[in-house]
Amino acid sequence: MTEDSFFHPVSGFDLPRFAGVPTFMRLPHVALDNPRLSEVQVGLIGAPWDGGTTNRPGPRHGPRQLRDYSTMIRAQNGVTGIRPFEMVRCADLGDVGPNPADVMDSLKRMESFYSKVRAAGIVPLTAGGDHLCTLPILRALAKDRPLGMIHFDSHTDLFHSYFGGTMYTHGTPFRRAIEEGLLDPARVTTIGIRGTAYDSEDRDFARAVGIRVIPIEEFHVRGVEDVMAEARDRAGAGDTYVSYDIDFVDPAFAPGTGTPEVGGPNSWQALQVAMGLRGVKIVGADLVEVSPPFDPSGGTAFLGVSIMFEMLCAIAEGLAGQEC
Amino acid sequence: MTEDSFFHPVSGFDLPRFAGVPTFMRLPHVALDNPRLSEVQVGLIGAPWDGGTTNRPGPRHGPRQLRDYSTMIRAQNGVTGIRPFEMVRCADLGDVGPNPADVMDSLKRMESFYSKVRAAGIVPLTAGGDHLCTLPILRALAKDRPLGMIHFDSHTDLFHSYFGGTMYTHGTPFRRAIEEGLLDPARVTTIGIRGTAYDSEDRDFARAVGIRVIPIEEFHVRGVEDVMAEARDRAGAGDTYVSYDIDFVDPAFAPGTGTPEVGGPNSWQALQVAMGLRGVKIVGADLVEVSPPFDPSGGTAFLGVSIMFEMLCAIAEGLAGQEC
Amino acid sequence: MTEDSFFHPVSGFDLPRFAGVPTFMRLPHVALDNPRLSEVQVGLIGAPWDGGTTNRPGPRHGPRQLRDYSTMIRAQNGVTGIRPFEMVRCADLGDVGPNPADVMDSLKRMESFYSKVRAAGIVPLTAGGDHLCTLPILRALAKDRPLGMIHFDSHTDLFHSYFGGTMYTHGTPFRRAIEEGLLDPARVTTIGIRGTAYDSEDRDFARAVGIRVIPIEEFHVRGVEDVMAEARDRAGAGDTYVSYDIDFVDPAFAPGTGTPEVGGPNSWQALQVAMGLRGVKIVGADLVEVSPPFDPSGGTAFLGVSIMFEMLCAIAEGLAGQEC
Amino acid sequence: MTEDSFFHPVSGFDLPRFAGVPTFMRLPHVALDNPRLSEVQVGLIGAPWDGGTTNRPGPRHGPRQLRDYSTMIRAQNGVTGIRPFEMVRCADLGDVGPNPADVMDSLKRMESFYSKVRAAGIVPLTAGGDHLCTLPILRALAKDRPLGMIHFDSHTDLFHSYFGGTMYTHGTPFRRAIEEGLLDPARVTTIGIRGTAYDSEDRDFARAVGIRVIPIEEFHVRGVEDVMAEARDRAGAGDTYVSYDIDFVDPAFAPGTGTPEVGGPNSWQALQVAMGLRGVKIVGADLVEVSPPFDPSGGTAFLGVSIMFEMLCAIAEGLAGQEC
Amino acid sequence: MTEDSFFHPVSGFDLPRFAGVPTFMRLPHVALDNPRLSEVQVGLIGAPWDGGTTNRPGPRHGPRQLRDYSTMIRAQNGVTGIRPFEMVRCADLGDVGPNPADVMDSLKRMESFYSKVRAAGIVPLTAGGDHLCTLPILRALAKDRPLGMIHFDSHTDLFHSYFGGTMYTHGTPFRRAIEEGLLDPARVTTIGIRGTAYDSEDRDFARAVGIRVIPIEEFHVRGVEDVMAEARDRAGAGDTYVSYDIDFVDPAFAPGTGTPEVGGPNSWQALQVAMGLRGVKIVGADLVEVSPPFDPSGGTAFLGVSIMFEMLCAIAEGLAGQEC
Amino acid sequence: MTEDSFFHPVSGFDLPRFAGVPTFMRLPHVALDNPRLSEVQVGLIGAPWDGGTTNRPGPRHGPRQLRDYSTMIRAQNGVTGIRPFEMVRCADLGDVGPNPADVMDSLKRMESFYSKVRAAGIVPLTAGGDHLCTLPILRALAKDRPLGMIHFDSHTDLFHSYFGGTMYTHGTPFRRAIEEGLLDPARVTTIGIRGTAYDSEDRDFARAVGIRVIPIEEFHVRGVEDVMAEARDRAGAGDTYVSYDIDFVDPAFAPGTGTPEVGGPNSWQALQVAMGLRGVKIVGADLVEVSPPFDPSGGTAFLGVSIMFEMLCAIAEGLAGQEC
Repeated sequence: MTEDSFFHPVSGFDLPRFAGVPTFMRLPHVALDNPRLSEVQVGLIGAPWDGGTTNRPGPRHGPRQLRDYSTMIRAQNGVTGIRPFEMVRCADLGDVGPNPADVMDSLKRMESFYSKVRAAGIVPLTAGGDHLCTLPILRALAKDRPLGMIHFDSHTDLFHSYFGGTMYTHGTPFRRAIEEGLLDPARVTTIGIRGTAYDSEDRDFARAVGIRVIPIEEFHVRGVEDVMAEARDRAGAGDTYVSYDIDFVDPAFAPGTGTPEVGGPNSWQALQVAMGLRGVKIVGADLVEVSPPFDPSGGTAFLGVSIMFEMLCAIAEGLAGQEC
Repeated sequence: MTEDSFFHPVSGFDLPRFAGVPTFMRLPHVALDNPRLSEVQVGLIGAPWDGGTTNRPGPRHGPRQLRDYSTMIRAQNGVTGIRPFEMVRCADLGDVGPNPADVMDSLKRMESFYSKVRAAGIVPLTAGGDHLCTLPILRALAKDRPLGMIHFDSHTDLFHSYFGGTMYTHGTPFRRAIEEGLLDPARVTTIGIRGTAYDSEDRDFARAVGIRVIPIEEFHVRGVEDVMAEARDRAGAGDTYVSYDIDFVDPAFAPGTGTPEVGGPNSWQALQVAMGLRGVKIVGADLVEVSPPFDPSGGTAFLGVSIMFEMLCAIAEGLAGQEC
Repeated sequence: MTEDSFFHPVSGFDLPRFAGVPTFMRLPHVALDNPRLSEVQVGLIGAPWDGGTTNRPGPRHGPRQLRDYSTMIRAQNGVTGIRPFEMVRCADLGDVGPNPADVMDSLKRMESFYSKVRAAGIVPLTAGGDHLCTLPILRALAKDRPLGMIHFDSHTDLFHSYFGGTMYTHGTPFRRAIEEGLLDPARVTTIGIRGTAYDSEDRDFARAVGIRVIPIEEFHVRGVEDVMAEARDRAGAGDTYVSYDIDFVDPAFAPGTGTPEVGGPNSWQALQVAMGLRGVKIVGADLVEVSPPFDPSGGTAFLGVSIMFEMLCAIAEGLAGQEC
Repeated sequence: MTEDSFFHPVSGFDLPRFAGVPTFMRLPHVALDNPRLSEVQVGLIGAPWDGGTTNRPGPRHGPRQLRDYSTMIRAQNGVTGIRPFEMVRCADLGDVGPNPADVMDSLKRMESFYSKVRAAGIVPLTAGGDHLCTLPILRALAKDRPLGMIHFDSHTDLFHSYFGGTMYTHGTPFRRAIEEGLLDPARVTTIGIRGTAYDSEDRDFARAVGIRVIPIEEFHVRGVEDVMAEARDRAGAGDTYVSYDIDFVDPAFAPGTGTPEVGGPNSWQALQVAMGLRGVKIVGADLVEVSPPFDPSGGTAFLGVSIMFEMLCAIAEGLAGQEC
Repeated sequence: MTEDSFFHPVSGFDLPRFAGVPTFMRLPHVALDNPRLSEVQVGLIGAPWDGGTTNRPGPRHGPRQLRDYSTMIRAQNGVTGIRPFEMVRCADLGDVGPNPADVMDSLKRMESFYSKVRAAGIVPLTAGGDHLCTLPILRALAKDRPLGMIHFDSHTDLFHSYFGGTMYTHGTPFRRAIEEGLLDPARVTTIGIRGTAYDSEDRDFARAVGIRVIPIEEFHVRGVEDVMAEARDRAGAGDTYVSYDIDFVDPAFAPGTGTPEVGGPNSWQALQVAMGLRGVKIVGADLVEVSPPFDPSGGTAFLGVSIMFEMLCAIAEGLAGQEC
Repeated sequence: MTEDSFFHPVSGFDLPRFAGVPTFMRLPHVALDNPRLSEVQVGLIGAPWDGGTTNRPGPRHGPRQLRDYSTMIRAQNGVTGIRPFEMVRCADLGDVGPNPADVMDSLKRMESFYSKVRAAGIVPLTAGGDHLCTLPILRALAKDRPLGMIHFDSHTDLFHSYFGGTMYTHGTPFRRAIEEGLLDPARVTTIGIRGTAYDSEDRDFARAVGIRVIPIEEFHVRGVEDVMAEARDRAGAGDTYVSYDIDFVDPAFAPGTGTPEVGGPNSWQALQVAMGLRGVKIVGADLVEVSPPFDPSGGTAFLGVSIMFEMLCAIAEGLAGQEC
């Protein structure tokens, strides 16, 4: 139980939710050089970068809009009643500083940041940023052993390369991660794939290495519970990463993203899959590809932080369980 | 049967729907001092006020946008085929004049207005305004006996107070109404509750006094028909108020509201619950919390007036039935 | 198999999807006077006209926005894996030139354009424009025998006239088509009807001539597969036209249209019904009523072209099957 | 002096400006069959029609948005201090009912409406609608003698025809008016012309018949006062019509219009030219081409009604002066 | 010279301007209980409150959007070359916590906050909030002697009361301030007044007590330099407050505000008047009435913070001069 | 005189301006491998790339939106009456294919494209893209001798590097161009500089090498004609490039850009400076930094193409003069 009020979010009963400097979920801002860093258990981090985007840019602005709308999140889960901020010490660790004009430099900066986070024993919950951001996070978190992964997305992000040989785009992170041994394909499940495709190269690769791809037509038939049971089963008891691309959700619910695909899950299903993470041993998670220029109204960001809150509850329950 | 064409809306076949001074559903504007007031059976009223809003304001602009989009409503129900404007005499009674800078004064003005409406024997169908508007309406309608209520919302609006003791906000109207004896908790059903919470104080109160709260996870499992059967059963044969907060609906369908919560019903379910009111003895109804600044496209307002039309049909059937 | 790369769309791997002059699905622009016209099997055509609109105008801007968003469509169907552009030779035939200030002149211009398309043996896939556009298309395609039709819409478009006798509006095309013998009512199915109505004159006519109308409440109960089986069965083996009004889809998914009706299908169902066209002998199809001024974000257009791609796949499979 | 409070607008001190059914400037709605019509001196009228639009439609929605924003207009002129509603009896006469799908029928409906207005001795102040609306107004007002005109616009609207012979579009009204003898070219001044052109046919015609065209480069050099002195001088003491196309103003100030041209006057100049109408004998005036779909924020409409208020002040001063 | 890098904003060369938790101008967040408060010379403060708004609400969201866009402000003045953050120690003091549902409580909370700021010897530069916010600020800053004021606005905000006696709205703050002796009318200049008016009661009061009102027509004729010379002259050498309502600027440049009036200054003039404050002894300043719901694009907020930066430069030069 | 109608734009009198596949100014699309390329004199080219953007991305979408709005440009200059498309043969050469995820590769692709354009003897008129695009264009055009340049911008783009050493961003192109000998500083004039600055390093460099910087405060005092006379004088008779960053214009007129600075020229001045290019020997020109995500309404794009048309007129007059 976290009794230290330093780590409790400001309540909307004390200060209206539209007021105050907007940190993630109104948590304290604890930079990496802050002496209280060592107390943090879960760190909310912004990765304001979209250098890997092949189509419509914008996710570099994601963390700011997500912070803004995260101030509408309150302290208690509506369904389970758990209060995560009282279970584990959470903080906003600020943003990773990217280099907007240099992809490779940005990858290094991110890996370095997350290595420090890991060294401090903090579980990172990241707000992207485009999906290439996940690669340097995995490099930091999976240095010593491959992780399992539950991956929500409308795209596999398993392509080999783009534009005649470019290896690092938001369509390739998990191809690289598999090649680098950061993920254990047998423990990886990718859910929600849909939309038109260039070809089947990505799915052929998935099949070859043993990644399980659950396309949307299967998802709609089987439903959330069945699909999540399979994903949890595959992830098993080992350390697992959760990567949630907001374009998993149908664009009517999440228009603010660069590569939408119609025909996706609704917002209740978007929350349900995150609720379905309970019991998974999560060592890190992200919510990526929120692109504010394509949704200035902020609905996408609010859905994004609502999903982040569900993921945080799953992490908090896991950590609190370990403590016992 | 209403044969007096004075009370028939202008047809889009005669005057295109984008033309003309926009009254609710193109009905005649009958102010409280109009001699024909005494003939009106159902009065559509705007409550352009949001002084009780704790987060994002805007519902004071709701009635105007709802009037605008209500001109796209035609004369006949698409499912049942009934033509409410020929069954009962309906009119636009105009707006209650609020005091934007004084909450208590506004509450008095509203109660006074609705007392006159009730005295004229008119069933009010209100377009809000924030949810605090429902309190003075109930004070006018429930002076002599407590009412039952069917309440659609993502929030219970049953909190005791905000900001260190403020008793009148859009998060407290039904707490006050229960305290003042305006509602009979045993006949009150609140449907759709979801989202993060400050704490459980509101639900504890509901449980203590006997209000039935149907949270969204239960709604999604049971479905509209089962839930509405329970709500109708609880309301019974007595006088009942219907209060419909547009944030009951998922924000993809109704983004124009101040305190959205993701994971809600879709637009078909939003209509279905209103269709499910048939048979309830409705003495008043409202559709509140439409906030145009958060949806200038008007989709929320159009959904709002579509719901109002369904509520109007239920009211008209009830009144027509009484007449027989 | 289409080996001629002239008819292959530009790949997003070669040229990013935001680059280049935007033709439909990045196909070659083959105007009616282009010598390669004779090779084209399926022609994508814009009908930038909304002179029949009775409420909110804008579909004249539809083709341009649809072309823009169609550049996000890739080469392969995500569910079936088929690659239509390699099965049949497709091209963008450009826009029909309308007369924005003269309805009757525009009808003539359109009929003349589609007569040429038909003479060239090309199956037209049209991007509207308002729904009156379908009338001159039918006049060109059904000169010699009535067609069957599968029609997705929230309105029947079967009214007799508007505004005191105006016969040609987007609410009357199929009334005219029946009167002119262009459609065989016994083979026509209209799916998704909902919303308030002026009266029942349109449905009475449908019943009288034998058009099957499946209203939304029936659609929601029976589901896509059952409904489409009936539509396919009614269309039979004969030549059939497919007309898809984007307002068939719920306005949360397709806000960019002039006469939305709430309570409609979601985007997955919107695709599913198009997938359900497989096996129908399609001689022409359209996607109409996309109105960019009411959705500058382009989500409606992207859904529209995603539906067009599904219709194209059904057409391609049919044509490829005939070739064998 | 108008002492009858019936004709006084509702004050924002009594009822907030966002409240109430929105009539023009919060004036009473007096339809043509209202017995008090005979008392009206200045009638504000909506012409919700855009059938003459050759490019981007939308002005049919103009009157409603202009009514909405006109409720922010108060009772007194900020510069001169005059209170027009106390000088002359003003009312909202409602909208002319157009036929959205028939240009010629709409022209007849409008001429008929304005003939009744003229017969009642009312000076019409019209909110368009596209610029073709001015033609039927002139037909009603100039039946017996040609009028002078002061015309603010970025286009001359003097073209002969469009699209191979279409005579009635919003680019031709004043060509028709000259041909029909409704305007006296020697008393017509057209101010603000700019933008690219198809050719010089319109300006050649102007020169030939003696219309004075003041292009924008001359306007910017000479300034408002000098230009308006010339226009007043040309109009002389005779009956004069004022036609104000909102695209006269630079699109940064008035984006909500279908055919903008950059490089125009700012909002202060937009008001100044209307102030410069003092002393002209105005028998009718209009503000046209406000197209809400291209400015949902309403800034264009608010500028439009601010200009209408200045025109109304000029009209009121003229009428009040005549009474003395 | 401020050598302590703690008070230097983060550079966009080090961390891109879209990254990081957004404080005002990327300054350190120093809450009132922070031990370093005593070092602060200029405090940037948010007043997220709009309880005094009589028309369109929204300024409660102003501080957050202003903080967001303030991260695009760099370290050095483009015209003068001065670097204010190196001249004086500046910090973001956070937001005053308002009570959204209680005007009088909010006034108390604000006065209390600013009393602490004053006690700490800090010059407050406030981002509103509606204009009523200025009253409690003046109560805190002018406790012991009346201040001079330079006031930019399109409204005088000198009305007595609204809605039948409501004394505290954003139309009355300076009437109250004069009555309470917080301002010395002889040293007050109000610049930019325009738009329609209810009546002349406000200007009559100004004249009676000796406030100088410079209406827009005078401003446009005389120009910025002449007007500001008069304002500086009237303010004299005494302590002076600067209150800048964003609706001083023309709505084409600042659409995001609740009560716009067309015909105002452009953005260069908007900056020039702030540059014209050099030499005035500023004891506090504010920029109020930025209403994000009416400009989600953020252009208004960016103009607002650009003006705040100019005011900050004037304050910094004054403070640095005093130190010498 | 260009009599070949192949190179004449489609007229809006023949085909409405909203119709047809949108090429630049409705010119023929002549790709680099088109046999008619050799006839082209002026080539309009899209550079859909923003890899050099340090703040808000989006200009990669510029060419498409500019093409869309360019269809509203007609054939004749409103002020001078010249008809450029009849003076020189113009065509849309399509887009340069960039690599969105690799800055250095994109620079190479662009230089290669423009080398071919130059080899074909075509004057390129480019629609950006961010300002780094100008560097590879200059590399292609200035291979053999340094060019003069007239540069409109609110930023000098003369910085050495960003983010700890990144040399290629949209803030550095002209620093690189000077270093590489592509520009002759003595013939370079940079007009419109304003806004806050990181430091003076860029202006110090300008001074050191002899670039003339005309800041906005000087521009506003001197006026367009005087400033442009100086710029023309400095450019002299030699080959000159024109680079026009849309953020030169005030953001009220051009909000759709990533790094706006308030206080800039209005739209008339924006056109006037382009008109002031008459007589300059222009070997290439660009209009860059239009960012559609920040102005979906398209006003910025329309201003952009209006400026491009003025630049085209200046180029056409120059080329036509040479021919004589």
